[in-house]
Amino acid sequence: MAYLGSCRQAVEDELDRVLPPAAQTPAVLHEAMRYSVFAGGKRIRPAFAIAAAECLGGGCRTAIAAAAAVELLHTYTLIHDDLPCMDDDDTRRGRPSCHKAFGEANALLAGDALLTLAFETAARSPVAPAAIVRALAVAAGSRGVVGGQVADLAATGQPSDESTMHFIHAHKTADLFRAAVEMGGLSAGADADALVALRAFGRATGLAFQLVDDLLDADEPDDHSFSSIHIMGRERARAHAASLTAEAMDALGPFNEAAEPLRAIARYLLERTT
Amino acid sequence: MAYLGSCRQAVEDELDRVLPPAAQTPAVLHEAMRYSVFAGGKRIRPAFAIAAAECLGGGCRTAIAAAAAVELLHTYTLIHDDLPCMDDDDTRRGRPSCHKAFGEANALLAGDALLTLAFETAARSPVAPAAIVRALAVAAGSRGVVGGQVADLAATGQPSDESTMHFIHAHKTADLFRAAVEMGGLSAGADADALVALRAFGRATGLAFQLVDDLLDADEPDDHSFSSIHIMGRERARAHAASLTAEAMDALGPFNEAAEPLRAIARYLLERTT
Repeated sequence: MAYLGSCRQAVEDELDRVLPPAAQTPAVLHEAMRYSVFAGGKRIRPAFAIAAAECLGGGCRTAIAAAAAVELLHTYTLIHDDLPCMDDDDTRRGRPSCHKAFGEANALLAGDALLTLAFETAARSPVAPAAIVRALAVAAGSRGVVGGQVADLAATGQPSDESTMHFIHAHKTADLFRAAVEMGGLSAGADADALVALRAFGRATGLAFQLVDDLLDADEPDDHSFSSIHIMGRERARAHAASLTAEAMDALGPFNEAAEPLRAIARYLLERTT
Repeated sequence: MAYLGSCRQAVEDELDRVLPPAAQTPAVLHEAMRYSVFAGGKRIRPAFAIAAAECLGGGCRTAIAAAAAVELLHTYTLIHDDLPCMDDDDTRRGRPSCHKAFGEANALLAGDALLTLAFETAARSPVAPAAIVRALAVAAGSRGVVGGQVADLAATGQPSDESTMHFIHAHKTADLFRAAVEMGGLSAGADADALVALRAFGRATGLAFQLVDDLLDADEPDDHSFSSIHIMGRERARAHAASLTAEAMDALGPFNEAAEPLRAIARYLLERTT
């Protein structure tokens, strides 16, 4: 938590710097973008990007563009997921969702603009900008996050199985965690072996994160959504999250104590209660 | 027209290569992406990218990634513009629009995936990938195409003025034409002076293209949409398109006969009847 807090201010500052001012024309668009980006997120994915860079002797300065890019991309997915034709959610983090606050067309376009700004920001990385853009795009596209979202929508309300659930978790969630550590590593000059280790760590952590999310959601008394808990049961989900976190720690074997921030975030994500 | 035809096959081949196979999971997503990309477009923006590269001694091979990227991005804007919360168009190029054929959520996500693939493709350019990504993102984002679309939606059905119309044309249309020639130029190693000339050419050609589009639309007997023709009148719009095309030709002053393909496309766009 302390490490997440220390990354968070740097990430907030960078997001504020790369987002156009709210007053710039068209103001409604820039207000909507800022409304959704500054909504109180924990900035877990950017913290992973920064921690991955530290693991290789880089730090906040080298990784900040990659870190901001992954958070901009994450925010676009939340705006589009909430739209009426998708999950149709009226609230997000206790406030009106973007389309409730700014209208459906403006929310759709704010998401499009944040996705675009994510790539612009990634391409401004001082190190390996093209490789960082490619890592983000592969994770975010039709074989990644978008593909996972399509599978999630197709499965909603229908009986599902573990292989469908795994496809959704792997793409909708874990692909972006994997990209976060990969992008952070690239910004610190990671070689091929380091990238293999970081990708394995990111993937396993992302899968564990989603199981813990589903466990926490299932504790909500009014939750009726279909999730991994309905398929695996609470005990197996909890055990699988722990085993994935152990797998993530193993993947960091090649690194020494410089990987401690990555380990600390992974432990926090497994043990969190919100 | 002959030049456009010669570029077109190379562009179609590259688009087919970078798009995932229609059968790949989730198949509905990859089918929707291909349905909209292969809908019979003239591929004008990719032709501009290739012609700009030729102008600097490059050619189809160096510019093909940039060319495909700009067309993928253009296709995403068409899918999202047609959605019910935007222009709510049921048809596009004589066929059902993407959301009519695949459903609203799948169309939204197909657009997101094409936008993402545009950046992945741009980042695979063999020359200047990061600069090409940045040129595309700046043109496509909240201060470019998306900003123009927000302004267009805000103006719909209301009395408008020339300055609003200019903002919409400059961002919704001309920014992507400017990016196309800029990206093509970058792929052929353009220096700062060449980029200034190419950007001025692209911007003026894009503005002229939109005026000609509005003139052709106004000839349709059932057209009731609000356009520049209502503000400027037919004669002034026609004269302004010609003057912008002349301005575009002037911008190519620094180049010799290598700029002939760029000039030929600009002339064709002014004189076209469809």
